[in-house]
Amino acid sequence: MTQRVLVIGADAAGMSAAHQALRTARRTGRELRITALEASGHTSYSACGLPYWIAGEVPGGGEALVARTAEQHRDAGIDLRLHTRAVAADLGERWVEAVGPEGVERFEYDDLVVTTGARASVPDWARDADGALLPGVGPVHNLDDGAAWLDRFTGDGPVVVVGGGYIGVEMAEAAVRKGFETTLITRRQVLRTLGEELSAKVADGLRAAGVKLVEGAEVRGLRVADGAVRGVAHADGFAPARLVVLALGVRPATDFLDGQVALSGAGALRPDGHGRVADGVWAAGDCCEVRQRLTGAWAYLPLGTHATKHGRALGDSLAGGSLRFDGALGTTITRFSAGGVHLEISRTGLTPDQVAAAGGRRLVTEGTTASGYLPEAEPIAIAVSADPATRRLLAVEIVGGRGAGKRVDAAAAVLWSGGTVDDLAWMDLSYAPPFATAWEILQVAARRLAERL
Amino acid sequence: MTQRVLVIGADAAGMSAAHQALRTARRTGRELRITALEASGHTSYSACGLPYWIAGEVPGGGEALVARTAEQHRDAGIDLRLHTRAVAADLGERWVEAVGPEGVERFEYDDLVVTTGARASVPDWARDADGALLPGVGPVHNLDDGAAWLDRFTGDGPVVVVGGGYIGVEMAEAAVRKGFETTLITRRQVLRTLGEELSAKVADGLRAAGVKLVEGAEVRGLRVADGAVRGVAHADGFAPARLVVLALGVRPATDFLDGQVALSGAGALRPDGHGRVADGVWAAGDCCEVRQRLTGAWAYLPLGTHATKHGRALGDSLAGGSLRFDGALGTTITRFSAGGVHLEISRTGLTPDQVAAAGGRRLVTEGTTASGYLPEAEPIAIAVSADPATRRLLAVEIVGGRGAGKRVDAAAAVLWSGGTVDDLAWMDLSYAPPFATAWEILQVAARRLAERL
Repeated sequence: MTQRVLVIGADAAGMSAAHQALRTARRTGRELRITALEASGHTSYSACGLPYWIAGEVPGGGEALVARTAEQHRDAGIDLRLHTRAVAADLGERWVEAVGPEGVERFEYDDLVVTTGARASVPDWARDADGALLPGVGPVHNLDDGAAWLDRFTGDGPVVVVGGGYIGVEMAEAAVRKGFETTLITRRQVLRTLGEELSAKVADGLRAAGVKLVEGAEVRGLRVADGAVRGVAHADGFAPARLVVLALGVRPATDFLDGQVALSGAGALRPDGHGRVADGVWAAGDCCEVRQRLTGAWAYLPLGTHATKHGRALGDSLAGGSLRFDGALGTTITRFSAGGVHLEISRTGLTPDQVAAAGGRRLVTEGTTASGYLPEAEPIAIAVSADPATRRLLAVEIVGGRGAGKRVDAAAAVLWSGGTVDDLAWMDLSYAPPFATAWEILQVAARRLAERL
Repeated sequence: MTQRVLVIGADAAGMSAAHQALRTARRTGRELRITALEASGHTSYSACGLPYWIAGEVPGGGEALVARTAEQHRDAGIDLRLHTRAVAADLGERWVEAVGPEGVERFEYDDLVVTTGARASVPDWARDADGALLPGVGPVHNLDDGAAWLDRFTGDGPVVVVGGGYIGVEMAEAAVRKGFETTLITRRQVLRTLGEELSAKVADGLRAAGVKLVEGAEVRGLRVADGAVRGVAHADGFAPARLVVLALGVRPATDFLDGQVALSGAGALRPDGHGRVADGVWAAGDCCEVRQRLTGAWAYLPLGTHATKHGRALGDSLAGGSLRFDGALGTTITRFSAGGVHLEISRTGLTPDQVAAAGGRRLVTEGTTASGYLPEAEPIAIAVSADPATRRLLAVEIVGGRGAGKRVDAAAAVLWSGGTVDDLAWMDLSYAPPFATAWEILQVAARRLAERL
């Protein structure tokens, strides 16, 4: 009997699920018929690559960001409908209605895969009286946004980036690389999932690269004259601007479900490790929360790496397999590399606030990425957090020069196994002078905390 | 009562032990009197830094390789005797005789710390009839060797490096950077702790940088004329040479113990994780074998990172603490960066031969270090090995461009905890386009093997 699978959203999570389901079905002997609806004209693109494309760093252009094209999905046997937006659903009767190029169509299914992703948060002050985005103002969320910014960045600045998260920092990099006078405005500190000292190092780097950084200031609104944006009014003053990047995060895109499935307060689905939400309903990716592996608590961590992993586990499970996404640690990495500054920034585990709430100890250690006598040695600062009672590692945060960022992966591996700060301090990590100090700095940082617990 | 500690060898292991013992003694309330004998005039230097110093890459010169000077050790309260070589010992009566600037002296002790390190292997063909090294020929083991090579490298080549291990590759890098015509001769394949495919990538890189690589050829001897070396005769032919680097490994320096302690077949001591060899006898560093953590087997892995860790555990333990060195995984890293080539090379876990002997499966995966659409993306090849029965990870080997090498640390962390290939494939490692693909290539490599077990 054919199992009818309907995928809503043909990006990382949905298409990872679809392709894995087909692979697993060959092994389990199931017959799948997969239909995928995609509201936009694009599939499987790298949203994370947008800031680099906009900065002119992607030689292949926007097409290069597409991991798999519509044709490649169709060649694999997936009935892909582009420009087709789900607008209504009856999860009891198992159908979804969607509006596409041919009008409204109803799709019946046995299994529904909700991988609708997220929408960029856009504040009211960014819109005109009719609700349209003001000219020169927009988010950085999908390929159309990217194309718009690529076009805007051929004109004049100044540029104001609103939002101090990862996308905000990455768009500040893009703007500085493009030669724009650049201001970054954020309500709190820049990259606030880092502790104060490490966030301050990022702030110093931004300023050294010429970015005007405004921290702790709410945006009040835009100044518009003659139909053009002139600047951003904020709690601490005014920043001239012709272009305003909205980097204010995203919200789960789950509207069409219309309350038929339980959602979190933030409007996210909460699938299990196999992607199961309810009988016949599956979900993964940016429309979902995931389990923080260390605490078991739900967390909204809309990242491509979780989308592909969770999607793959989902696809395998719905075709009779048993792959499982076993939670996220909150591992992230980015860089700010512009204006003569190169900073790599990464973290894994609980946030400093969560560490404090859990009674954890946190210690910052500074050192170098390579043996100090080599020109490769760059400054690096590492915060390590652990539970004094159990000695379990809770978090690692890193800010440093070239080679600093990816060190977080070794810490993530220790967190993944529930290891201690002593494991991190004493395990056998690689050493040679161009790559590390004889006690790798990540391990020195762990050892220093271990000695104080 | 004062505990008299006699340390033989004032380099990484010995001085890590001494300083940690003093720290721990303050906590445990013990009174230590530490005497350290050092045969050379140097303490605590980075032997791993020698090739970079010789290549002219250490701005601070040879002094910069010294992590802690004799004065710093003495200021900490250690009675350090330079140019003082242990020549005899009675471990039952607890004394050591040493020859120093003032003649022979006898040192009585309560605890003996043997941290004598290793000596470079020098074949007979490298010596003249009187047993002296031929001019232009020498190993790369200590600061005096480094100074000699720094001097030789101001003259003419060609240079022949004999030995295809880490030091051999690093000295080939130094020679190419210095502009010498360079040949590397090795009995087997270059970096033979890598499997064939990955070793071949290193070989390709060496050749692309202009190194004449001779693999699988035993050296027969040197051609000498008018007291100067003219070349190296080997099984496959002849390589012209004015300078010959001996990179043939090291042997434990344990002669003065004269059979009073059990040694391995290779002449190494076998201390436990606390550095204990026998009652009142302790050891760590390059004169010792260590436990391969994955198998429990003894292994000779003379590396500075083990010396400092094991030495620290030893020092803590002899002063009443409980720190323990819990074995090594065989993690190593190096690079070959010269002649327009930049290769990073790392490994952890069992060797390919050991994997095969244990019935393990090994799979090579190729990919990129960053998202393929960015110029940062460099080729990387990763071999992952696992046990098909238990799915436990056994080894990871990496050869690739900038950013490839340190990825091995995440794999080492999984090995340290006894994790599986599935843990490596699915755990939460960091992703952003300049640093990784959405499925980090290390995890793709693990996933591909996991799918085949």
